[in-house]
Amino acid sequence: MAHALEQARAGAAAGEVPIGAVIVKDGVVIAAAHNAPRALTDPTAHAEILAIRAAAQHLGNERLDGCELWVTLEPCPMCAGAIAHARIGRLYYAAADPKGGAVEHGARVFEHEQCLHRPEVYTGIGESVAADLLRDFFRARR
Amino acid sequence: MAHALEQARAGAAAGEVPIGAVIVKDGVVIAAAHNAPRALTDPTAHAEILAIRAAAQHLGNERLDGCELWVTLEPCPMCAGAIAHARIGRLYYAAADPKGGAVEHGARVFEHEQCLHRPEVYTGIGESVAADLLRDFFRARR
Repeated sequence: MAHALEQARAGAAAGEVPIGAVIVKDGVVIAAAHNAPRALTDPTAHAEILAIRAAAQHLGNERLDGCELWVTLEPCPMCAGAIAHARIGRLYYAAADPKGGAVEHGARVFEHEQCLHRPEVYTGIGESVAADLLRDFFRARR
Repeated sequence: MAHALEQARAGAAAGEVPIGAVIVKDGVVIAAAHNAPRALTDPTAHAEILAIRAAAQHLGNERLDGCELWVTLEPCPMCAGAIAHARIGRLYYAAADPKGGAVEHGARVFEHEQCLHRPEVYTGIGESVAADLLRDFFRARR
């Protein structure tokens, strides 16, 4: 999660909402990204989506079986859906997101029968650091 | 929708699940795509995601205000989330998808308070043609 938080800080430095994600396979980081919708002019460019796309390219496989995704904030519906499509084995997220999350809030994407793959989900690791990064970012922009 | 169905047929011809999408602004098609996760080795490469990314590039803006998205199948959670992030004004889809849809089924992404933008939604235009394309595709693969 330290690596994902580092990505989040890099995002903030680039003027993007500070959310970072890394994908790990067999103990090795194979992809890392931060939110970048502004820089890329791409509304889908959340950290998780960019990391999933990079990992699939790295592995030469659209299915990321056996991979872990570490992200600093609870995924939104778009990212939770992508995690299911990619067959991510384990999802770790630092801070919960009552305003936009879709794992334990709102759409609860993994809890419907329409969801064809559910990762194991672990939460809270690095929570306060991740939440502070977001709070400081939005406070500075007001 | 005829244009989106044409994309779906092109997808089938390329060995991808036949789902097509186009984005229209001011009566002009500014992006068109079909599902391509296999060809692109990208689990996020659904027709809607590819069309949204192309439209944002075309407009030079990550927000697709005033745009319509026409797609041949009810969007999944990933694509519904992307539609909300992109601020698509109107969503038209042909066939409903009880097995994987997230607009009128399952996660019902637009119906939660965590969803910050809800498009107007219109359904059923071209429904039987879109459903037949999918049925024929999966029947041929069995």
